[in-house]
Amino acid sequence: MIKTLQQVSTIAEMRQHISEAKRAGQRIGIVPTMGYLHEGHLSLVKAAREKCDLVVMSIFVNPLQFGPNEDFEQYPRNMERDRELASSAGVDLLFTPTVSEMYPQPILTNISVANVTNPLCGRSRPGHFDGVSTVVMKLFQIVQPDFAFFGQKDAQQVAVVTQMAYDLSVPVQVIPCPIIREADGLAMSSRNVYLSAEERTQALVLSRSLREAAAWIRDGASPAEVRTRIINMISEMPLASIDYVEILSYPELSTLEQFKDGEAFIVALAVRFGKTRLIDNLIETV
Amino acid sequence: MIKTLQQVSTIAEMRQHISEAKRAGQRIGIVPTMGYLHEGHLSLVKAAREKCDLVVMSIFVNPLQFGPNEDFEQYPRNMERDRELASSAGVDLLFTPTVSEMYPQPILTNISVANVTNPLCGRSRPGHFDGVSTVVMKLFQIVQPDFAFFGQKDAQQVAVVTQMAYDLSVPVQVIPCPIIREADGLAMSSRNVYLSAEERTQALVLSRSLREAAAWIRDGASPAEVRTRIINMISEMPLASIDYVEILSYPELSTLEQFKDGEAFIVALAVRFGKTRLIDNLIETV
Repeated sequence: MIKTLQQVSTIAEMRQHISEAKRAGQRIGIVPTMGYLHEGHLSLVKAAREKCDLVVMSIFVNPLQFGPNEDFEQYPRNMERDRELASSAGVDLLFTPTVSEMYPQPILTNISVANVTNPLCGRSRPGHFDGVSTVVMKLFQIVQPDFAFFGQKDAQQVAVVTQMAYDLSVPVQVIPCPIIREADGLAMSSRNVYLSAEERTQALVLSRSLREAAAWIRDGASPAEVRTRIINMISEMPLASIDYVEILSYPELSTLEQFKDGEAFIVALAVRFGKTRLIDNLIETV
Repeated sequence: MIKTLQQVSTIAEMRQHISEAKRAGQRIGIVPTMGYLHEGHLSLVKAAREKCDLVVMSIFVNPLQFGPNEDFEQYPRNMERDRELASSAGVDLLFTPTVSEMYPQPILTNISVANVTNPLCGRSRPGHFDGVSTVVMKLFQIVQPDFAFFGQKDAQQVAVVTQMAYDLSVPVQVIPCPIIREADGLAMSSRNVYLSAEERTQALVLSRSLREAAAWIRDGASPAEVRTRIINMISEMPLASIDYVEILSYPELSTLEQFKDGEAFIVALAVRFGKTRLIDNLIETV
């Protein structure tokens, strides 16, 4: 049987598909995205394809998770291309609701997760993770997935969603998937299209500094030393403006005085090149 | 087949029962309670019994919805009696988790609903409805019910849960059920056991004032007039201390300057008798 992608734009229609799939005993996976798909998203579909009978991808640029001065309006969109990529990658159901389908009235309900949202992007982007956890919960209620696939590039998002699912006993297993990079090391991101050629070249310092960091840590450098060296390295790039460079425990995202055997940590960074804010990270265990 | 009540105390065991019921295509209803059951709770079971194949009652005194100076510790509990009442009423599964089963770690996730939580008990009991919406969402995730039954005595709770379910597309239909009263008019409440004989007698002013209010409204009194008369009536009781008397639109719970044909309103009151805070209300359409 050749499966073909079906595009669904309403919650009601989605529920019908889901209820049929549930009756048939299918395992459902969701890949929540904001579209403008790249290899990172497609790697999530591949992971979902391996674990699930029905792979749902949502494409929804969620206004709740953008600040008033952020790039909600400018966020890149290309539904036709996304549909082809999703279909080739093996998505069964593409959920593409409009903003008014998702929020027919101004939404009054807010989900917030404490602690893990305090540092990193949570500090730089107030309200961002409330928007993320609220929309993800809503997508979980609509799609009722057994598995949800998220990229580790947004490591704090993974931590937030995992914490929410744990706290509220959401019957969904959150599966983090590795960062996918361009051949030269730049982490894949829909926002990479914003970069000028010169910014694009200088942005390579992000992945390079993380590779260096891994080596420094193996050689015994402390978190504070590693942080300083990364800051110095990035600061050499004239177009780079650092938002944060932090080394924290993972997934708790609490302060880390020193690396300890067997304890996972994250080296996380957010850096602006022109108007474009890029993030990247390294998650490891010493 | 004689059905016998099964008591389940862990989330894992609950999930097994639910997953069997789902496989069998059963419609699931939940009656969330804090126990110390009375006729009000049992009327919810009756409503659930009529609509559902599997009736789940949860008994959980949820610390999140009690303020630091409220009666969490003193809240009346009697599991043995509750189990018998639940069984006679037709509950299939009695979910009785401990606090550490529900919150094995301090919960970091919070659900809040704006607007409808501003007036009434939301103002008197800061954080109360966050605790309610968070635990109800968690129960919904564990039990995955098709229907959830709530008493209209906690009318604001009904409004909050309904709004949350709407906003987050929770696949649960919230069913409000009428207030059940003692023969003399006192609204049933687990907290009624706190009342002394004298307080119990004076507390009858609540239901009496609501009955009067209905007549005043029929006779054309304005919301402000009705409110003043209720306040006067309750103030005649020496043991009564008014928390609030409000007349609002329902279920939006916004200010109501005058009654309008076809628009639902609530006359809501909260009054302390000694240490016991009682609530009651009248929901009607002119």
